[in-house]
Amino acid sequence: MAAARIIGAALTSDHAYARLAYLTDHIGNRLSGSKNLEQAIDWAVSEMKRDGLDNVRAEKVMVPHWVRGEESLELLSPVSRKLQMLGLGNSIATPADGIAAEAVVVRDFGELDRLGERVRGKIVVYNAPFTNYGATVLYRLQGASRAARYGAVAALVRSITPVSLQTPHTGAMNYDPGQPKIPVAAVTIEVAELLQRMNDRGEHPTLRLKMEAKFLPDAESANVIAELKGTEKPDEVVLIGGHFDSWDVGQGAHDDGGGVIVAWETVRLLKQLGLRPRRTIRAVLYTNEENGTRGGNAYRDAHRTEIAKHILAIESDSGVYRPEGFGLVATAPLQVRANLQEIAKLLAGIGANQIAENGGGADIGPMMHEGVVGASLDVDGTHYFDIHHTPADTLDKVNPRELALCVATMAVMAYTVADLEEPLGHR
Amino acid sequence: MAAARIIGAALTSDHAYARLAYLTDHIGNRLSGSKNLEQAIDWAVSEMKRDGLDNVRAEKVMVPHWVRGEESLELLSPVSRKLQMLGLGNSIATPADGIAAEAVVVRDFGELDRLGERVRGKIVVYNAPFTNYGATVLYRLQGASRAARYGAVAALVRSITPVSLQTPHTGAMNYDPGQPKIPVAAVTIEVAELLQRMNDRGEHPTLRLKMEAKFLPDAESANVIAELKGTEKPDEVVLIGGHFDSWDVGQGAHDDGGGVIVAWETVRLLKQLGLRPRRTIRAVLYTNEENGTRGGNAYRDAHRTEIAKHILAIESDSGVYRPEGFGLVATAPLQVRANLQEIAKLLAGIGANQIAENGGGADIGPMMHEGVVGASLDVDGTHYFDIHHTPADTLDKVNPRELALCVATMAVMAYTVADLEEPLGHR
Repeated sequence: MAAARIIGAALTSDHAYARLAYLTDHIGNRLSGSKNLEQAIDWAVSEMKRDGLDNVRAEKVMVPHWVRGEESLELLSPVSRKLQMLGLGNSIATPADGIAAEAVVVRDFGELDRLGERVRGKIVVYNAPFTNYGATVLYRLQGASRAARYGAVAALVRSITPVSLQTPHTGAMNYDPGQPKIPVAAVTIEVAELLQRMNDRGEHPTLRLKMEAKFLPDAESANVIAELKGTEKPDEVVLIGGHFDSWDVGQGAHDDGGGVIVAWETVRLLKQLGLRPRRTIRAVLYTNEENGTRGGNAYRDAHRTEIAKHILAIESDSGVYRPEGFGLVATAPLQVRANLQEIAKLLAGIGANQIAENGGGADIGPMMHEGVVGASLDVDGTHYFDIHHTPADTLDKVNPRELALCVATMAVMAYTVADLEEPLGHR
Repeated sequence: MAAARIIGAALTSDHAYARLAYLTDHIGNRLSGSKNLEQAIDWAVSEMKRDGLDNVRAEKVMVPHWVRGEESLELLSPVSRKLQMLGLGNSIATPADGIAAEAVVVRDFGELDRLGERVRGKIVVYNAPFTNYGATVLYRLQGASRAARYGAVAALVRSITPVSLQTPHTGAMNYDPGQPKIPVAAVTIEVAELLQRMNDRGEHPTLRLKMEAKFLPDAESANVIAELKGTEKPDEVVLIGGHFDSWDVGQGAHDDGGGVIVAWETVRLLKQLGLRPRRTIRAVLYTNEENGTRGGNAYRDAHRTEIAKHILAIESDSGVYRPEGFGLVATAPLQVRANLQEIAKLLAGIGANQIAENGGGADIGPMMHEGVVGASLDVDGTHYFDIHHTPADTLDKVNPRELALCVATMAVMAYTVADLEEPLGHR
């Protein structure tokens, strides 16, 4: 009966969409260390108090403060042309007058390894077509250091996406401490393919990459928390969350403005409906998922003494498209899986009743490492990577009805789990 | 038999693609008045002579020389943000410090007319969703003057496209001589929707538009012509063509680099195969289609005495996607239509045997006005307007096999018409 009320209320409310509109249109993108992110945090705390939620608070987290600065990429020869690029998060800068060198284009790490020392002094361009995110993102994460190992002076990575309209995708990269640090940027599919053609024709294209990227001192930020306190077992927690930070382009609408709004709206809606479950539902709007996971780590550290009381943690960080159900960590106890499968039947009417074989999330990862059972809100991912980490991750890409369906899905699951008479299952 | 040879040769050759690659990768986009366009013209004349084609020449045409200069659009309130834009061709500049004014967003001309004088002193933003090109492009062509009529100080037009990844589309606009000239630019779908939302929420967004756009004195350019001289009736001409100029973004690959390569490759391939028809096939690479149609007008003027001898003119300017056949001008004599339908059967094997009810083209328009029967190479247009007039109209969007199919289609039709024993049909 509660499920029907929740679904009905979620699907007839425009409250979630209006909040996401404020977040995206009025605040905008929210990289760690930016004024926008802190403005979003202050706004959320204030609004959550107005919502009448329990234990509203901002838990301080120090976050990395990487800033992009000016950046550009220029083809110098065989012809002169400006090329579309977007620096990768965590990258170092080039010298002020840039790095000018020949480009060597490879389609995969194997090709790089076969070239080996022949890339010394050159700019390695990874032109790896998108297969799936987990596989292709390795070029973004590791490309710089793997090229630096052979003496490359900079690296460029084809954007991690299946489609492009000259659309560059940023995202985090990591330096291997054993290798020299070299600057690294994303290029569009179009630019990668242009350089590939020139490479294959033996034209030895040369490039000039300029980047001002740098780290400022760590900045103060916070995880934002609001609760619906449980009636019978208030110390037992069902955690739902997403991340409040985003990259510094677009609006961070799907990634992950939508996700934090889903978590927040879940507790607000239940509160409004007077549906208070036996256990506590805690919404956490994590900071610094994109370039540090400091929010997820800080939450684990600050809540160590109650970690064992977290009976389930659900992260929403795959966009707010049509929900399909949940992904439950593969190592979850069988009883938990059986319970979630049973509860998901309440969502069959909106087509969100799948419990996938695996799930979890970056922000809840540190908790999961300590034994908390983790899950993800799973959605139709067909178009997520088209706009992921780009200037095109904007509110117009969010379908209000699909967002409402995500809220309904999360709220039914969180409420029902939190209100179970029996335990959800052994940890 | 000739058709089978032509199709076989076209589909086993990479010559057309290699030429298009040189044009796009090494020369790049080609706006009228630019060095790139003149470089392309010189290259084509030189290469056509090397191809051994007949009567290779560049026929001088004076063309408008519009230059974009620096340009930007900024949201000033309710929040400050840079917005994606691209000035429209033929627009005037703003003052050096820009035009700052409130935005008023309308979904169509009707809404503008209902607002009337209430847009005085404001920037009119047309947020008209794409229906089809012919209908939606009216906002780009007429939007500035229709807003100026009511005292608007500038206009912005949602890009004429069904899809966007923050992708602005430029293109020509026209000033109504009866109205004040105001600057006009395209914005992305994302920006138009952002402003629409702010407008609808009553937030009175304000913008600053800066554009340096201006006309320099007319520049010298040329139509490039090469022929395969007919054996029996060399004064009768089957004209095939496209336009060599493009907008000043991307590579002008589909629009219309591919089209000119199809025309050129048609005569080169027939020459190589030793297939010389009874009548002359003339390939014309027109200049200045995009912002003036001076090439099409100049061709008509220079060839007035032989206009009556043009038995058919086929333009390729819809991209070089999978060919479907030809569009024949609706007013074509029935005998011409019957002949083309019969000839098109030769193209059934490659699925390019449709003769659509109407067709023609901008460059051959002036000739058609003088009575020449016009047609268009028709292709699958599903994705043309995704990239039309954008930085994403690049060679990677061209499928080499589809380009070869376009060459085969054009070459079979042009050769067979030119080699008919009987007349094609009464004018």
